[in-house]
Amino acid sequence: MLGRTYDGEVCSIARSLEIVGERWTLLIIRNALFAGATRFGDFQRRLGIATNVLAARLDGLVTAGVMERSSSAATAEYLLTEKGRDLRGALVALTDWGDRWAAPDGPPIIYRHDGCTGEVHGRIVCDACGAEPDAATASRGPGMPEEHADGG
Amino acid sequence: MLGRTYDGEVCSIARSLEIVGERWTLLIIRNALFAGATRFGDFQRRLGIATNVLAARLDGLVTAGVMERSSSAATAEYLLTEKGRDLRGALVALTDWGDRWAAPDGPPIIYRHDGCTGEVHGRIVCDACGAEPDAATASRGPGMPEEHADGG
Repeated sequence: MLGRTYDGEVCSIARSLEIVGERWTLLIIRNALFAGATRFGDFQRRLGIATNVLAARLDGLVTAGVMERSSSAATAEYLLTEKGRDLRGALVALTDWGDRWAAPDGPPIIYRHDGCTGEVHGRIVCDACGAEPDAATASRGPGMPEEHADGG
Repeated sequence: MLGRTYDGEVCSIARSLEIVGERWTLLIIRNALFAGATRFGDFQRRLGIATNVLAARLDGLVTAGVMERSSSAATAEYLLTEKGRDLRGALVALTDWGDRWAAPDGPPIIYRHDGCTGEVHGRIVCDACGAEPDAATASRGPGMPEEHADGG
């Protein structure tokens, strides 16, 4: 059985997956981010997830700093932090891919801009020339230790 | 133990995670997409993943149509299909998030545009007004069945 840490992987995808890669976690965040869910019962009802699993996931998200638990209300609320809200790009990109490749009846859900109600989609953009490239290559960044220089 | 299917979830994130949400799968795709890995040994050496797990993941990606196995060479090659290459947006978005929130020494890896070598990052953009919105709301799309109308 694999552990939760990708040993030897110095990569921000690996680190992201350690935090949000557990089953259900991204769906919980999606419900908080795009559908206003805040209470345990909201998530449970929408996702139909076992309560022990949901409790473990919410606790993990609080520990990871992706959500914070506010108990000032009669029922505790789970609210996304900035770190959690910043996952919107990854969620939209995964949705776009699923819409294109795994949604034969069309997109089940459309994300609309709160301002103008236009559809929101992900893009990847080159900072230097503004192109939306089909191809890119991984190169070493400042956070790559010497011993992983070929870590790709 | 949870099954591989998110029962009752009519959502392209859920469908995407069924295909690419297993541990190691996105890292395998990343190595293929951004670092030119094609052979079993390439993936095994770079990821340090157990060979039985790697074999299962590659088989799963072929079955899902994300990769195709070419055995015309002396050693079989695993090549991304268009469906697989189209995951670049999700991979870049997850990397951006990890770089921002889980890379205290700076980004370990930088994706550079093959054309001009500029850095490539993800954005979410409103199709209608061109804004990069901080907030969006899920609404029902054509692929949402009647009985899930509140499925958010």
